Amino acid sequence: MSEPMMTFPLNTSDILKSAALRYPEQEIVSMLADLSVHRYTYADAYKRACRVANFLASANLSPGDRIATLAVNHYRHFELYYGITGQGLVVHTLNARLFVEQLQYIINHAEDRWIFVDPELLPILEALADKIPSVTRLIVLCAAEQMPQSSPLSLECYETLIAAQSDEAVWPSLPANTPCGLCYTSGTTGNPKGVLYTQGSMVQHAILSGGSQALDFDEWSVVMPVVPMYHVVAWGIPFSAPIYGAKLVFPGCALTGENLQKLIETEQVNQSYGVPTVWLNLHNYLQQSGKSIESLAIVGVGGAASPTAMVKSYAELYDVYWMGIWGMTETSPLATTANLTPQMDQLSDEDCYALQASAGKPIFGVEIDIFDAAGRVVTHDGVTRGELRVRGPWVLASYFKGEGADSFVDGWFITGDIAVINAQGYMSVVDRTKDVIKSGGEWISSVELENAALDYPAVNEACVIAALHEKWDERPVMLITLRAGQDYDEAALRAMLQQRVAKWWLPDRIVVVESLPHTGTGKLRKMDVRDEYRRILLAD
Amino acid sequence: MSEPMMTFPLNTSDILKSAALRYPEQEIVSMLADLSVHRYTYADAYKRACRVANFLASANLSPGDRIATLAVNHYRHFELYYGITGQGLVVHTLNARLFVEQLQYIINHAEDRWIFVDPELLPILEALADKIPSVTRLIVLCAAEQMPQSSPLSLECYETLIAAQSDEAVWPSLPANTPCGLCYTSGTTGNPKGVLYTQGSMVQHAILSGGSQALDFDEWSVVMPVVPMYHVVAWGIPFSAPIYGAKLVFPGCALTGENLQKLIETEQVNQSYGVPTVWLNLHNYLQQSGKSIESLAIVGVGGAASPTAMVKSYAELYDVYWMGIWGMTETSPLATTANLTPQMDQLSDEDCYALQASAGKPIFGVEIDIFDAAGRVVTHDGVTRGELRVRGPWVLASYFKGEGADSFVDGWFITGDIAVINAQGYMSVVDRTKDVIKSGGEWISSVELENAALDYPAVNEACVIAALHEKWDERPVMLITLRAGQDYDEAALRAMLQQRVAKWWLPDRIVVVESLPHTGTGKLRKMDVRDEYRRILLAD
Ligand SMILES: Nc1ncnc2c1ncn2[C@@H]1O[C@H](COP(=O)(O)O)[C@@H](O)[C@H]1O
Repeated sequence: MSEPMMTFPLNTSDILKSAALRYPEQEIVSMLADLSVHRYTYADAYKRACRVANFLASANLSPGDRIATLAVNHYRHFELYYGITGQGLVVHTLNARLFVEQLQYIINHAEDRWIFVDPELLPILEALADKIPSVTRLIVLCAAEQMPQSSPLSLECYETLIAAQSDEAVWPSLPANTPCGLCYTSGTTGNPKGVLYTQGSMVQHAILSGGSQALDFDEWSVVMPVVPMYHVVAWGIPFSAPIYGAKLVFPGCALTGENLQKLIETEQVNQSYGVPTVWLNLHNYLQQSGKSIESLAIVGVGGAASPTAMVKSYAELYDVYWMGIWGMTETSPLATTANLTPQMDQLSDEDCYALQASAGKPIFGVEIDIFDAAGRVVTHDGVTRGELRVRGPWVLASYFKGEGADSFVDGWFITGDIAVINAQGYMSVVDRTKDVIKSGGEWISSVELENAALDYPAVNEACVIAALHEKWDERPVMLITLRAGQDYDEAALRAMLQQRVAKWWLPDRIVVVESLPHTGTGKLRKMDVRDEYRRILLAD
Repeated sequence: MSEPMMTFPLNTSDILKSAALRYPEQEIVSMLADLSVHRYTYADAYKRACRVANFLASANLSPGDRIATLAVNHYRHFELYYGITGQGLVVHTLNARLFVEQLQYIINHAEDRWIFVDPELLPILEALADKIPSVTRLIVLCAAEQMPQSSPLSLECYETLIAAQSDEAVWPSLPANTPCGLCYTSGTTGNPKGVLYTQGSMVQHAILSGGSQALDFDEWSVVMPVVPMYHVVAWGIPFSAPIYGAKLVFPGCALTGENLQKLIETEQVNQSYGVPTVWLNLHNYLQQSGKSIESLAIVGVGGAASPTAMVKSYAELYDVYWMGIWGMTETSPLATTANLTPQMDQLSDEDCYALQASAGKPIFGVEIDIFDAAGRVVTHDGVTRGELRVRGPWVLASYFKGEGADSFVDGWFITGDIAVINAQGYMSVVDRTKDVIKSGGEWISSVELENAALDYPAVNEACVIAALHEKWDERPVMLITLRAGQDYDEAALRAMLQQRVAKWWLPDRIVVVESLPHTGTGKLRKMDVRDEYRRILLAD
């Protein structure tokens, strides 16, 4: 029988095409590396995305090929999102904060064909040059006159390449399960794993996360994503904002409190999105400078737990609604949001702040629940903890190349977060089963730190936990037991660690203890250690 | 290869289930036939929809069976929408305004198994009793004590049947192409044709038509659909409002200006939807009574062209934004909307009203375009007319049982409307295809010619048809009946027409006839006229 209704997959290309028709004059503003401001419209962006698509179509690429980007938030990166995905290719966003060994692993694992790169981030690739054999072209995101003069690499110029193309495109109609994006999540144990987004998941996430249930975009919205486009697709905002006609403000690499305040004021930003550290920095800058952020109405905050004190400061000092958000690379990433509701009118300020600091309720389409060790659902009383599971049309079904199969059970994805859900359905993450520290929105692997420490002769056992930190949310604290008969010197241990991991991974504190607690099977009982040392970095 | 992201079709059952979790306390208010008001919450509605689903599951029905409803807008009809569709069955809404012969045809064509019916609408079925053999159960939407005492029909009581069921349900997960709704469109020629909505089309339509691009629902919305649930699913509002947590106000059969004003005032309705006549009646009532509608901010108006004078009255007298909407049974039905935009601030009031009176721009997902007789896209200048075509994930791909195959071309559905699109993308319907003459590839509007002729005093009625022409394919032929006691002179009539329409629009022949054929409802039977006069311009 023929289908009764059109089976008409909505593609990422439809998003920008429709925005160019519906909202041709709406602006996209980018702060560039030299702090100059670039400004154009959805109609302009669409034409340039067509050029990118035509350029890709003219090359010798196959559907599903991974095309990498190593770039911050700006209009050229935005064009690439559409040009690449709209052509049936996969945009693989490389996280500029990873260190070179991880990037090397990721690029090789993804078998990236080309890399589009910001001139400022070229040094990262120079260090990798002969270690990423699948990569055949490096294209620098700048105009001809800005091309680096002396690079050991063979580079091409983005503007020159796309100038040669037509600004009209015929987009293929891609089935919903066509891969379109790839983002690696940090390995909690072992190597990073790839999350392969599809046309269907990306578009559905954009539609529903941009709707009034979640980010609530419309033609009056002026949205600044501070979350990077090089990780978790800047929370999908480059795809959701155009659907609803919001103005976009890309801050580039200008993420200091000072630059953010300036952009908010000059562009009249009314919504902005980022990890807690961003808002702490902005708050500090505002306090110091006496500057204001009057246009700002909402900050959406996720990636780490929201400190209630900040929620209160933003409400009372700046009249900004702090909206807690939870998600992960594996959930595209937005899954739950703590929106303003009419009921909040009836609550005390403190009760309101508590809801805002939670991770909120699931967006339509997403289901969450919490489970005990035996896989039974636990009660939603706001106190009982359970392992958080999630499912929905923009949740991962299997990692790239089939890795990590033990993260899936009964149709659920197991998040590795420990959470509570209250009677009203608000969820809060209270702990993690996975061994990572989230410092300013970026992951530090406790396992890698522990392994590195074990190479120091005097260290018998090492345990790294996430300790709460006022500025960075979490920072690593290392506990070690010592090997009898070996000399121990903290400075020497630190010097050694520094050779193996990025400098910002180094523990804030190294504590020597008599013994560490273990489970029956001999594993470290990290939860116990965490309970004891979690607050060690906080002022009393 | 396994799917990278969960293939997780969103079903209608997910909508109410999620609303009960997210917005348990939000209200659904119904005005009943006795003008009393019924009030409950999404949490209540979900439980009762579960009862309906369990009742259906316990019966001897097969997936895809049609279950009809003959009912106005109220909470029981709302529960049926979810209970029936969520179980993998098809809710077939019977239009209470059709004549009995049409209903008989439709019920038999759909092979409806059961009918759920309002007590007030039972007389319609009594007239049909022995002519609809597929129907095995008639269930009356009322409580036991309200059951009709003396009916020739064998009737069951809705409340009694569902009281026996559990208020928790396990919903099947239904693939996107599972049929879930059936609505017949009036036959322009021949019999009515069925439009079979699917889970995928219904949910996608609800998500996007309820979003900020179109109806713009959120938890502050108080929405009164005056458009009937017995036709075009009340514009999808019973499915879209719960997604975004809007309060619903069902007016039942109380559609007078007086009742609507009362409901708006007591329930603080801020958005309402209906055809132009509804708003004309309300306007007349307000003018007479001196009553006000202060809470109302938006009326969404479709189903017929918006009179600009009304747009102006609603703006200037009531401070209500009149939002033009276009859609049809075949488009689920919402396809284009003339939303308030920031740009309207810059326009004169009159320019604004003109945009509001248009059909607006396509909702994300829908594409429209206009075509000349040769199937070429015509220019978007606000003047050039073309045949309107539409496509998208909630647009019909084929009529029920494969009828009307000539309405589809190159992946488009041919609407039968003639429209213009202006440079900003706003569309306006200006005519119906079946009423236009295609002369040498150009359109001539029969409706405009007829209206012009009526201004000549001697013309009582005019009918313009497309007659076949050797050179021009088609040319207009006008048939008129004369008003007794008035002088008629063809040259004078022609002279007058020429002042109103382009010279090349003038009819090739004007024929005076004794009488013109009419349908039961008093409309011209143009088809009959066409049959008789179609070849009048051809040489034998
Ligand atoms: N609102 C939140 N509260 C606490 N932790 C969060 C929140 N949002 C995200 N996270 C953490 O960040 C992880 C996802 O990181 P990523 O994949 O880098 O986006 C989650 O699994 C949580 O551990």
